[in-house]
Amino acid sequence: MPKNAEAVYYSDYLKLDRLLDAQQPHSTKYGAEAHDEMLFIIVHQVYELWFKQVLHELRAIHQDFSKPQLDDKALYLVAHRLRRVLTIQDLMNDQVAVIETMTPQEFLEFRDYLVPASGFQSIQFKELEIRLGLTRATRIAFDQQSFYNRLNDEDRNYLEQLEEQPTLFDRVDAWLARMPLLEFKQFKFWDMYQQAVNDALDHDETIIRENAVDAQQLETELAGIQTNRDNFAALFDAERYQSLREGGAVKLSQRAMLSALFITQYREEPAFNLAWQVITSLAEMDEKLTIWRYKHAMMVQRMLGTKIGTGGSSGHDYLRRTTEQNRVFKDFFAMSTYLLPKSALPALPAEVRDALGFSLEITHRSV
Amino acid sequence: MPKNAEAVYYSDYLKLDRLLDAQQPHSTKYGAEAHDEMLFIIVHQVYELWFKQVLHELRAIHQDFSKPQLDDKALYLVAHRLRRVLTIQDLMNDQVAVIETMTPQEFLEFRDYLVPASGFQSIQFKELEIRLGLTRATRIAFDQQSFYNRLNDEDRNYLEQLEEQPTLFDRVDAWLARMPLLEFKQFKFWDMYQQAVNDALDHDETIIRENAVDAQQLETELAGIQTNRDNFAALFDAERYQSLREGGAVKLSQRAMLSALFITQYREEPAFNLAWQVITSLAEMDEKLTIWRYKHAMMVQRMLGTKIGTGGSSGHDYLRRTTEQNRVFKDFFAMSTYLLPKSALPALPAEVRDALGFSLEITHRSV
Amino acid sequence: MPKNAEAVYYSDYLKLDRLLDAQQPHSTKYGAEAHDEMLFIIVHQVYELWFKQVLHELRAIHQDFSKPQLDDKALYLVAHRLRRVLTIQDLMNDQVAVIETMTPQEFLEFRDYLVPASGFQSIQFKELEIRLGLTRATRIAFDQQSFYNRLNDEDRNYLEQLEEQPTLFDRVDAWLARMPLLEFKQFKFWDMYQQAVNDALDHDETIIRENAVDAQQLETELAGIQTNRDNFAALFDAERYQSLREGGAVKLSQRAMLSALFITQYREEPAFNLAWQVITSLAEMDEKLTIWRYKHAMMVQRMLGTKIGTGGSSGHDYLRRTTEQNRVFKDFFAMSTYLLPKSALPALPAEVRDALGFSLEITHRSV
Amino acid sequence: MPKNAEAVYYSDYLKLDRLLDAQQPHSTKYGAEAHDEMLFIIVHQVYELWFKQVLHELRAIHQDFSKPQLDDKALYLVAHRLRRVLTIQDLMNDQVAVIETMTPQEFLEFRDYLVPASGFQSIQFKELEIRLGLTRATRIAFDQQSFYNRLNDEDRNYLEQLEEQPTLFDRVDAWLARMPLLEFKQFKFWDMYQQAVNDALDHDETIIRENAVDAQQLETELAGIQTNRDNFAALFDAERYQSLREGGAVKLSQRAMLSALFITQYREEPAFNLAWQVITSLAEMDEKLTIWRYKHAMMVQRMLGTKIGTGGSSGHDYLRRTTEQNRVFKDFFAMSTYLLPKSALPALPAEVRDALGFSLEITHRSV
Repeated sequence: MPKNAEAVYYSDYLKLDRLLDAQQPHSTKYGAEAHDEMLFIIVHQVYELWFKQVLHELRAIHQDFSKPQLDDKALYLVAHRLRRVLTIQDLMNDQVAVIETMTPQEFLEFRDYLVPASGFQSIQFKELEIRLGLTRATRIAFDQQSFYNRLNDEDRNYLEQLEEQPTLFDRVDAWLARMPLLEFKQFKFWDMYQQAVNDALDHDETIIRENAVDAQQLETELAGIQTNRDNFAALFDAERYQSLREGGAVKLSQRAMLSALFITQYREEPAFNLAWQVITSLAEMDEKLTIWRYKHAMMVQRMLGTKIGTGGSSGHDYLRRTTEQNRVFKDFFAMSTYLLPKSALPALPAEVRDALGFSLEITHRSV
Repeated sequence: MPKNAEAVYYSDYLKLDRLLDAQQPHSTKYGAEAHDEMLFIIVHQVYELWFKQVLHELRAIHQDFSKPQLDDKALYLVAHRLRRVLTIQDLMNDQVAVIETMTPQEFLEFRDYLVPASGFQSIQFKELEIRLGLTRATRIAFDQQSFYNRLNDEDRNYLEQLEEQPTLFDRVDAWLARMPLLEFKQFKFWDMYQQAVNDALDHDETIIRENAVDAQQLETELAGIQTNRDNFAALFDAERYQSLREGGAVKLSQRAMLSALFITQYREEPAFNLAWQVITSLAEMDEKLTIWRYKHAMMVQRMLGTKIGTGGSSGHDYLRRTTEQNRVFKDFFAMSTYLLPKSALPALPAEVRDALGFSLEITHRSV
Repeated sequence: MPKNAEAVYYSDYLKLDRLLDAQQPHSTKYGAEAHDEMLFIIVHQVYELWFKQVLHELRAIHQDFSKPQLDDKALYLVAHRLRRVLTIQDLMNDQVAVIETMTPQEFLEFRDYLVPASGFQSIQFKELEIRLGLTRATRIAFDQQSFYNRLNDEDRNYLEQLEEQPTLFDRVDAWLARMPLLEFKQFKFWDMYQQAVNDALDHDETIIRENAVDAQQLETELAGIQTNRDNFAALFDAERYQSLREGGAVKLSQRAMLSALFITQYREEPAFNLAWQVITSLAEMDEKLTIWRYKHAMMVQRMLGTKIGTGGSSGHDYLRRTTEQNRVFKDFFAMSTYLLPKSALPALPAEVRDALGFSLEITHRSV
Repeated sequence: MPKNAEAVYYSDYLKLDRLLDAQQPHSTKYGAEAHDEMLFIIVHQVYELWFKQVLHELRAIHQDFSKPQLDDKALYLVAHRLRRVLTIQDLMNDQVAVIETMTPQEFLEFRDYLVPASGFQSIQFKELEIRLGLTRATRIAFDQQSFYNRLNDEDRNYLEQLEEQPTLFDRVDAWLARMPLLEFKQFKFWDMYQQAVNDALDHDETIIRENAVDAQQLETELAGIQTNRDNFAALFDAERYQSLREGGAVKLSQRAMLSALFITQYREEPAFNLAWQVITSLAEMDEKLTIWRYKHAMMVQRMLGTKIGTGGSSGHDYLRRTTEQNRVFKDFFAMSTYLLPKSALPALPAEVRDALGFSLEITHRSV
């Protein structure tokens, strides 16, 4: 206990007077309190508290990635904090079960008193999306129009100013792009890699031809292989890569994509392990957000059927449409398209391995 | 212990010699065992054991619903067993996290040895789908073609014969349709109900007009209201209802739909509580199956990217497409479209309430 | 939307200005903010919000049970709300994983600034315990002394006044005790039941004698059987029951215990199903609270080892000791001691069954 | 697909004929099948499959730790596989909810047919315990006697032979003990550390004296501090440490304990991160096993009350007693007793930090 510190009391520390006075059901304005409005308020407030915590972590991570260089201890912290975010996301996803204990009829008892408030007005959630990298340009069309038009001026300005900043996606892309993974002297890694991937795709094509159950399936799947071949070839051709990117097939820059592929492929090397944890966690964050949106869409459908939400729109359809499109780190998620089994992987030269590796036991012997 | 019974030994009872000898990795045929193939096998075997248990419950439930009449104790058992199925589904959904501990590269070490085996060949899962009511006619087009063409004759025959039987959906529909809920003498419930729903839809329309943020949204949402009006009106018009049903907008028969609506609306009445639990559980079963398919689709994408699965098809796309369409009990799920708040609900006449209710405390006083 | 209502804005409705301003880390008073203090605050605030919601439900349930009679619709609501409490408890138990993402060292960065605040000062949690029935008399010795001595006057007075009120346990006991389940004319249920239980205990004794692996085990287990015989005999002897109760072996009154046993035994009868759900849920609430205390004890041990908590006591030991003793509804939990298999159960006379049962299908035919 | 490979069929690969034929309810021998016996069998079979998988991982980990040296890539795999084990344990813990859907009465319908089989006869679970380090000497007294006496000769021999082998605990202890962490030349780490811990304990003593609520609490807590002082002093005194160890207060050898403390304290250093993940995961494995035993004890109590289990013993009491004592890696769990906040930690000399660290970005620049 620091000298001269005052004794701390639990409820003062947690500001419980403020916190526990912030539940003001509107149903009481129009008659008896609807018993379940308390649940509705508290469930949303808990989400907002978790959003605040997730933003607290994301801002710190964002800041670390914004430095000219990210040293190994900083990377450890980034990985640690991303795991925390994932743990909170699991809890948020399970929390849908709590609101589902309210029946549609119980909701109808007070729903009308909330018009036109809407979860789409959660500034923290929007900040979370924008900060990750879901900026105006990348949103689905409906959302580009309507993302802002239910907000008051202060909130809209705050978010629009945020849209001007580099996102976490931008920073992660830059971090990957500046890694010198692609310039090993005399180590023609990518030549070997291209050959190995092509062999694997030839192999897949053989499997398809031998196992297709009808002509239509054969055609569809051969077309899929060809797309893979084209995309993979484009990884090494700046111009073709750029056109893939403009078409929305990939989001990362070319150099960042290659670094991410290298890291994923050699994640067991100590030097890459933390970086791999980070890109994996970013992909999982996307995945868990997607599941959250999906569960929310189903909950809204169960609650309202095809009725309109309090904000005057059919939230269910919106949520469903955004489920898939709103992935920021989808390139990490789909990385395995080009992964090779370890047995097919070009061996790293000894000098490269030495530069990457170290042994806990050996290192210390030498101190 | 029954007389003359032999002493039972744990491993004999559970047939552990058979069970624990059923993991035969194929990688050992071609070289060293791929460490992670064991996980792959066991995860799928655990799923198959749970499928067996779920089918054990569903068959019993199916049989109960196939009787001419379902008494109250049978209905209690149906509700109890459906809750068990839901609990198992939660576990199956969480189990995806276990297979996700295998990295794509670890999978690539043995994936080629499994061609063209595929999860689509799980007969138990297909039986589960068919038994619930996902018959050939209701599958998505791709599935109608390919559902059977990877199976051996025995498996195909088994399933095709199953497709001839009335499904659980059919039985549940018949059970609801034969309930005499719609024929209360001198109680014009549905007249009152129609008026109340129309008032509610008028009310929604007002909200939309007052809160629409632009003309396009207004138009879309008014069209939604009109669809609801049309669908609701069709509930009471046999001909229009039939055309809704043929168009796929609803699955239940008209009488079953009205009974389900009545039960949902008055679920607090003791007489309806178990029936409401049953239809809610059926909707949740669908929902949890959907989440299982969705998580599986994402896991497959993470594992293979856009590569083809061992069965020679892009399982990811298939799973994603079926996620939404394959709901059997979607009418229960969307029931809240026509729900009224308790305050707007027509009061049941005393004689009807008396017929439905009983009081634990009062009843016994009279014994 | 009610006429003349003002448009509602999400952040106003949820009082987000207050809610999101209630996180004031103390580390900033003494230097740079400890990054993880935010997590510590928010995790505790979320718990307090859930406590508020649980109390909201428990107070309503408590009030229902305090009425002279609990009708069937009220009982439905009680069961419904208890399920909600259980769902929230599951989430609170899983939430321990979030605080576990903070390492002990991260906690040490700000722990000293919180002295002597302590989770034992959570008035809402103490209200929850007292309201359930964990009053001063039933707490473990350590707790009787220290329960109040860290509180300020206002908080202490509030809780002491609450200790004067009948608890939920008291009300549930009275509800069970006044059920007329024990007075069926000419139906000597309990005579038959006693005989059936004695047969079952004889049977268990035979199993023990035939399967004991050594003399010591035999002795221990036969003593266990004798205790069961004595306890069971005491159920029907007011004086002996009273002495069991004074010794702490049972908590329920004699009549309440017998009603609970009857309900559990015949829970499939429609008339008892809701009552059975209620007593099962109360037992589960205890169980989940126990797991919460247990997980908390382990988390505190991991965080502090055997160091003292911020409140100046070794919270870990305390929590561990209370894990077992603090069960309020333990009699419901142990009910299966005296349960019979359905095959051994005395059949209810037709007149009793008729009074209890009703059939959804039959009932309505008669309307 | 390898050349000449035969096409693989899903049900052949998974040996479904064997797997799905291994459920043979005993109730059918004595009358109609008890519906719920299937659940009972399948739940236990699923546990056995997961045990097989956990053993598959533990054996591989055990083997790695048995090598003279564990290089960094092997350590990565150990950490990866331990995480998988933890994920499976989470699922096994949640699986208790499935067996809880069986009511005590449903269990009574077939319980008698299983006598005297018992979960204590699961050889795989016992192997898991022994392999981790829960050997005869460390079991609680009851268990030392009865651990083997329900097994057939083959099973008993298998486990007794296993008890002769070095356990995973032994191997982990040796791995930690041989780390050269304690011999930095001219870096008097442990001198500084002792001083810093003593300061922290003085600090705790002050807090206790200032905040004790009564004399008894003061005495208890000061005694606790003194125990901590003695234990900590013993860490550096081979003779006193040995007597702590013989008394059961610690399990690790002195050198292993100091290495584990060092690693925990400096886990952010890249060189220690994987090692820290490993010791943390081992502690979590213990914790999750403890929760599994605890949930099982509660489930057995709910199912049987104080009745005896099918194996003729009161499983509930046994499980409860073992909950706490059977921790193998408890020293890792309690490590935070001696942890210092980063601010109080002696700085590592530059030469030591350089030996430990590396930077992803810098390293590669130099290739």
